[in-house]
Amino acid sequence: MMLDYDKIYARKAPDEAERNDLKRISGSLMGKIHSLLSKMRVSAEVELVGSTSKGTNLKGGDIDLFIVFPTTYSRSEIVKTGLRIGHTVLPNGREKYAEHPFVFGYVEGHKIDVVPCFHMNENDDLKSAVDRSPLHTRWVNAHLDDIKRREIVLLKAFMKGIGVYGSEVAKGGFSGYVCEILVIRLGSFLKALEFFAGSEKRLRLKEDQPSPMDDAPMHVTDPVDRKRNAAAAVTSENLARMRILSREFLHEPSEEYFDGFPRKSPPRMPRKTCFRIFTLERPDLLDDIIYPQAEKLRRIIVNESRNEGFHPIDSEVLMGRRINILVELESDTRPAIKVHTGPPAFSPETRRFLDKWNDSPHARGPFIMDDRPVVEVAQASRYNEVLIDNLRDKDIGAHLNGVKASIKIYSMPATKEQRDLMQKYMTRNLTG
Amino acid sequence: MMLDYDKIYARKAPDEAERNDLKRISGSLMGKIHSLLSKMRVSAEVELVGSTSKGTNLKGGDIDLFIVFPTTYSRSEIVKTGLRIGHTVLPNGREKYAEHPFVFGYVEGHKIDVVPCFHMNENDDLKSAVDRSPLHTRWVNAHLDDIKRREIVLLKAFMKGIGVYGSEVAKGGFSGYVCEILVIRLGSFLKALEFFAGSEKRLRLKEDQPSPMDDAPMHVTDPVDRKRNAAAAVTSENLARMRILSREFLHEPSEEYFDGFPRKSPPRMPRKTCFRIFTLERPDLLDDIIYPQAEKLRRIIVNESRNEGFHPIDSEVLMGRRINILVELESDTRPAIKVHTGPPAFSPETRRFLDKWNDSPHARGPFIMDDRPVVEVAQASRYNEVLIDNLRDKDIGAHLNGVKASIKIYSMPATKEQRDLMQKYMTRNLTG
Repeated sequence: MMLDYDKIYARKAPDEAERNDLKRISGSLMGKIHSLLSKMRVSAEVELVGSTSKGTNLKGGDIDLFIVFPTTYSRSEIVKTGLRIGHTVLPNGREKYAEHPFVFGYVEGHKIDVVPCFHMNENDDLKSAVDRSPLHTRWVNAHLDDIKRREIVLLKAFMKGIGVYGSEVAKGGFSGYVCEILVIRLGSFLKALEFFAGSEKRLRLKEDQPSPMDDAPMHVTDPVDRKRNAAAAVTSENLARMRILSREFLHEPSEEYFDGFPRKSPPRMPRKTCFRIFTLERPDLLDDIIYPQAEKLRRIIVNESRNEGFHPIDSEVLMGRRINILVELESDTRPAIKVHTGPPAFSPETRRFLDKWNDSPHARGPFIMDDRPVVEVAQASRYNEVLIDNLRDKDIGAHLNGVKASIKIYSMPATKEQRDLMQKYMTRNLTG
Repeated sequence: MMLDYDKIYARKAPDEAERNDLKRISGSLMGKIHSLLSKMRVSAEVELVGSTSKGTNLKGGDIDLFIVFPTTYSRSEIVKTGLRIGHTVLPNGREKYAEHPFVFGYVEGHKIDVVPCFHMNENDDLKSAVDRSPLHTRWVNAHLDDIKRREIVLLKAFMKGIGVYGSEVAKGGFSGYVCEILVIRLGSFLKALEFFAGSEKRLRLKEDQPSPMDDAPMHVTDPVDRKRNAAAAVTSENLARMRILSREFLHEPSEEYFDGFPRKSPPRMPRKTCFRIFTLERPDLLDDIIYPQAEKLRRIIVNESRNEGFHPIDSEVLMGRRINILVELESDTRPAIKVHTGPPAFSPETRRFLDKWNDSPHARGPFIMDDRPVVEVAQASRYNEVLIDNLRDKDIGAHLNGVKASIKIYSMPATKEQRDLMQKYMTRNLTG
């Protein structure tokens, strides 16, 4: 089936009215910032960066305004000035913290970031993580035409549809900039998909020469900083998703990919497993901070479940008003006995081990297993008891330790969020 | 507590009457064999070998009569002559197969082996596995006195008491010859125990220089064949048993060690586990052949249980009129679903995997796990069903394949042998 890409583009790109709004709002904000800088006698420039400035934005995109300071300023000076200007032009703005704080806010429903950064030339060493953005914007604009703009929007919309768009930590997907590089260098949306569908183990653009040390599954050299892998944030899971679904799409294109697949419930069949849902308070912190912590707690719960012998099968997180973590287990009980292993036979310490266990309550033994004395001892056998006990003594991360006392374990979904989590788990598909 | 070793020796060594009987019976048999050899014009010698010939035998020991042929004879000639003589002097004798067949039988309740072998000099290459025995006998007799004889009997009795005596495959313990070498070279029973109680990781007699390639946990150079490790048959489990219990005995000697520890039932505590007992017909074959096969089947059952996700804890064999194998499991059910993993994301084969599973019944998925597409599929969840199915298709050894159809799985001990097996498992102690 031939898709009507013009129609898809029209659905995904901002319409004329939105484009005009963005132009008007950004122009007005830049004017205000420019006069503020003059008034404050600060020799910085204001630049519109990001996809809006390049005409590669999807519907509902942000406006990113960067205040570019000469490197003679100190970091604290640019942060102080940046925040002051941000709060002035965005009276309802709030502060957000990337590598340094900046102000974001909304104007007529459009999200605006006002970010201070240092001036940087190509291949310069970075002073702060955001300094490259103006260079990226200039490089992309120098290599774009309207046809490629359209192809970039299609690629972004495709990636968004299958859940791999966005390079923030919580997502681990592809940045808009990587989409732009791929289309500029490969020529089109479909060429980019063919690149992903290829069968090379490590994905590299033909002319790129990453250092032999770089064993990332995907490498895209940043044209403005050739030491940098612009795709370094992509997780191997998201890369796999993109590769597999590019291959599927090329075989049988469908608009579904751009809109997200419907989540289907699997046929009802007995699983003979046990579910547990851990729920705890969600500290009032930014997603970029709290998502990795929730992810870390999920890993801790899975590892503790495994180490304690409950055989976890799979797990899932849902961030709502609370943090909800689901784990599916082979069983919610384990044997009431476990083997406790003594020192190797050559060690004089076997004496102490046997003395101790002759006088201490135990199940079978002591007997010999391989080359050591062992004894069977009693252990708690119920999951909730064991996990609650272990988490009590465990560092679950600076921000979650404080809400540890709020952890509750449910055997059945009891809240709307828990039911949604269960649904998310059961309907998991190729897009996530 | 000081033990009365004279009393222990008296209990374990043959008494005067038994010694006289052995002397009379072996003398008479040797006379008969000698005249048969003359009559048949065979230039072979008959020799009394083994512990009886050295005066290091425990009560109820065998008489080993070797017919030593010059190396000019062929193997088939010595076997033919050996069997003919054996059957003549032991009219009720039966044939047994070591490296080659020989005759064994009983005279006045004493077991007699009549074994043909080739003449061999020290450090010669071996023609058959039993050729060394006459050399062993000569070396031991050349280095013994009555005091050391007594010490050897004590060491053998100790090893027998703790279950590590006997170098046959089914036992994997210490041969009488190793006991003799140890006492001759170390001086006494207690010195031998101190040797085992030592803290060196690999046990070697001081003057022995095993090849650097020999990483056996214990090495005892055979004095008549210096390339050979006389203790090579000892399993690391039996060595561990001997090391640990030597240490215990030296700390607190007790006659118990010589008589076997009483087997104590552990305190009743819930185990929250599942037992299964596999029972099958025992083919009419020698222990040396059938024990290793039963042991191999035990390992197959444990491995299949593990690979199929039933989490075996421990297992035990009891050879009776039938072969009985017990396995304790964490659970006798497993999840009714399992993850079926597809090809890696870079492979064009992901297309076929997705095509197949979109059309085939499955539980969750396909979704992405790590860098691959996976799908959850149904699987049988009950232990007996899965194991019976797997064993049906499995090679369980030449001699057991024929009785495979007789395998039955019990969840509770139903026969006397099965109850004994259960008892053996539950009362396992340091001696086995």
